[in-house]
Parts: sequence; C-alpha cells; structure tokens
Amino acid sequence: MALPQMHFKRGSTKPELPDDGVLRYFTMAFCPFSHRIRLMLAVKQVPHHTIYVDLIEKPEWYKDYSPLGKVPAVQLTNLKDQPTLVESMVIAEYLDEQYPGSGRLFPTDPLKKAQDKILIERFAPVVSAIYPVLTCNPNPPADAIKNFEAALGVFEEELGKRGTPYFSGQAIGIVDYMIWPWFERFPSMKINSQYELDEKRFEKLLKWRDLVAQDEAVKKTALDVQLHAEFQKSKTLGKPQYDIAFKNIS
Amino acid sequence: MALPQMHFKRGSTKPELPDDGVLRYFTMAFCPFSHRIRLMLAVKQVPHHTIYVDLIEKPEWYKDYSPLGKVPAVQLTNLKDQPTLVESMVIAEYLDEQYPGSGRLFPTDPLKKAQDKILIERFAPVVSAIYPVLTCNPNPPADAIKNFEAALGVFEEELGKRGTPYFSGQAIGIVDYMIWPWFERFPSMKINSQYELDEKRFEKLLKWRDLVAQDEAVKKTALDVQLHAEFQKSKTLGKPQYDIAFKNIS
Repeated sequence: MALPQMHFKRGSTKPELPDDGVLRYFTMAFCPFSHRIRLMLAVKQVPHHTIYVDLIEKPEWYKDYSPLGKVPAVQLTNLKDQPTLVESMVIAEYLDEQYPGSGRLFPTDPLKKAQDKILIERFAPVVSAIYPVLTCNPNPPADAIKNFEAALGVFEEELGKRGTPYFSGQAIGIVDYMIWPWFERFPSMKINSQYELDEKRFEKLLKWRDLVAQDEAVKKTALDVQLHAEFQKSKTLGKPQYDIAFKNIS
Repeated sequence: MALPQMHFKRGSTKPELPDDGVLRYFTMAFCPFSHRIRLMLAVKQVPHHTIYVDLIEKPEWYKDYSPLGKVPAVQLTNLKDQPTLVESMVIAEYLDEQYPGSGRLFPTDPLKKAQDKILIERFAPVVSAIYPVLTCNPNPPADAIKNFEAALGVFEEELGKRGTPYFSGQAIGIVDYMIWPWFERFPSMKINSQYELDEKRFEKLLKWRDLVAQDEAVKKTALDVQLHAEFQKSKTLGKPQYDIAFKNIS
C-alpha cells in the first residue's frame, strides 16, 4: 500500500494502514534523529511503512503515537496492544536486541556499551553548536565555528585514541550509525555557508566519513546534499519545505 | 579512608584516594541525578568512595573524570585503565548489569525495558517544570504550577494504567528509583513555596510515594526535608550552600 509522498499536516485524516503486522515508522524526511532509525531499519532489513509528519503543523492524530509529538517513533504493530516507541536511542537499542540479524550493533559487554552510549551522548554539543553555523548564511560568526569545531574535536581525538577505522572497531557499529546523519548533512554547509571541515584538523574524521559513506545502509538512506542544503535554507527562512525530500525519492 | 566532608572547589588539590579497587562515586549532595546513582549503589550494596564536587566553583581536576564537569560520575577503579562513566541512566544500567545482586532492576525483556526508559525520559518535563515552582518563593505563578502538574499528571495516569503498586510492578524497580529523587524533594516546596501536591489529583502517586519511602535504599540515602528546603533557598538566592548537607550526615 503506497501512502502519499507528503508530510501529514494539521487537519489531515489519520492514515489508514493495513493491519498487516508491518512496523510503522514515523519520521520527518530531513530529521537527523529519525535518520538514525532509518539506518537501523535498513541495516536490520526490517520491513516497515513510513509515515511522514510535518513538525511545524503537526497532525492532531500524531499524539496518539507520540505523546510529545516528537519523531522518530516506531509502532510495533506485530505485538499485542501495538505499542509505539519514541526516543531514537531507545528505539535503536530495541531494534538491535529484537532484530539481531547479521550481528549486534551495540556492544554486548556492559562497559563497552556504556562507553559507546556516553560517546554518542557527547555528540549532543555538536548538534547544538551546529545550528548557529547552519543558520548564519552566508557568513557564520567566528565564535559559532569555534564552538562547533571544539565539540567535533572530541570525535577526531576519540578516533585517534581508539585507533580503529570505525568508532565501533574494525566493522561499522552503533556509534558510527548514530552520529552519521549529521555527517551526511555537513557538506550542505559548504553550499549555504561556504564552510567546510578543515582537512588537517579533522583528518581522521574525514577519512572515517569517506569509509562510512560506502556502507550499504548509509547509501540506501542517503539524501542528496543539494536537497539538504535547500531544506536547511527553507528552515532558516522560517518555512521548512519538508516535501522537497520527494524530489529525488519516488 | 575518610575524605573531608565537603564539596571540593576550584583551586582544591585532587584528592588522593587509595588504589584499592573500590569504585569512586562523584556527586553533589543535593543533585537528584546523582541521587539516582546513590540509590543504585545502595540497592546493589556496591562499596564506594564518595567525592563531593562543587558545581559552581568546579575543581580544575574534575574534568579528568567528567570532561563536561557533570555529576554523577563513577570511576571503575576495579577495571583496567580505570574508566569513568557519566550520565545517570548509563551508569544505572551499567551497575544493574554488572551487579545483578538480588535481582535486575531494569526489565530484561527488550520491549519492557524500552518502555520503562521512555517513561523515565518523560520525567524530564517534570524536572524542567519544577524549577519555576521551586524558585518562586513564596508565591509561584499559577501557570508554573499548571505546567508542573500537567507534566506530573502523566505519571499519575501511568500508575493507573499499570495497575500495580510500583511503576515496575509488584516490586520496586528501575522507574521507581530513577524518579524517586524528585519525590524526596517535593515536600520541601511546602516549606519554601507553600505548595503541595493535591491529594485527590495525585492520589495514586502519593500512595506510591508513601510505599517507596519505606524502601531500605531510599531510607539509607535520604536527606531531611528541611535540608532540601534550605539548600533550595540558598540556590534561589544564587549562592548554593552545598556543604549544609553534612549537618546531618557524619
């Protein structure tokens, strides 16, 4: 069943989805936190319906799934009572435990798992520091760039400490996937703000980025850098154009 | 070895702790997030050294343990490289997995675990809504109270839905412990702001509170309501008096 290729808005009718036990994935096409779950679903090859939600004019019915109106959310229609999960890290861990597939992405060792979660949590300062860079088009203030680079520097340093091609070791793992969505978006800063990561300062991260970009799930869930830039521009202007995502997706 | 009963400040010398493999717990005596871990350590009966940290005038050496200067932190001196964990929920889950003791506090079922984590995450709006009530002494604005009660109402409703004495079922569990620290602090609002929870509206939660208050770990880690009120007052005045915690602890 094909849902319309659009973000559901306030006033829309709740979509009628088949009672087929297929998971329902609620997202906003450009949301990096939702992208985390899109990656998990792709890696684990979990069949799902995708429902796009307008985050400014939220459909009234969406709070039945996500009480605070946040994306991502995943409704487990294969289970009794069809519960819905929210919070990207919670959903990611649930999917990893429930769909081990070709291997667990979270470490099973309690210490390593805790350390990876702490590292992912340390990406939050990067996420907050990036907005003043993204939205100050075309000349982001020097201190915004300084803050952003300091926050990101933690990851450059950590890759050096770990001494492995991926944050998760010799193979791609949970840290890599959970921070990836922002790295897919970084090149759009060059288009909108003439800013790009310094090749020397972020040498290891850029090498890592080229490596992760080759991953099958990463390729499958990728949106074009031009689309990211265009969306970001519309957001900066206060009118996010969610549906431009479908220019390239069909 | 007895450390001084005080919060370490900027300019202080890094405390010399014995290399005895005993965990090191970094805290601020009144911090509710740190209290979560104090509860975990008590429930699991994990021996530990306690190091108190002044959160306004942070000791320079503290970033060696917690790079962002946050409490709680737990240094695992029993392990190679003596790593330090931060983030209360990450530490709690690590301790639960590593010290199963008389039973796991987190559900082992992936769905139940995810749902409990989501519920704990939904306490964040209560935490943000409480500050305008706490700091508006003695007459909190009506809308601050309204927001606070709406956020807390989710938990009153959830207890009804679950239909069990504890959030975690017939026995106390992770949700109960992780939200408890704020319930220990609520009665101090009566002293500072003449505000208390409505007995009708929060009937189930108040019954739950009386039940949890009887728990051994809860009793062991409790601070007196007068101390909480006094601390909160000092914080509202912009000069948090951390060391008043030791009036009753010795």
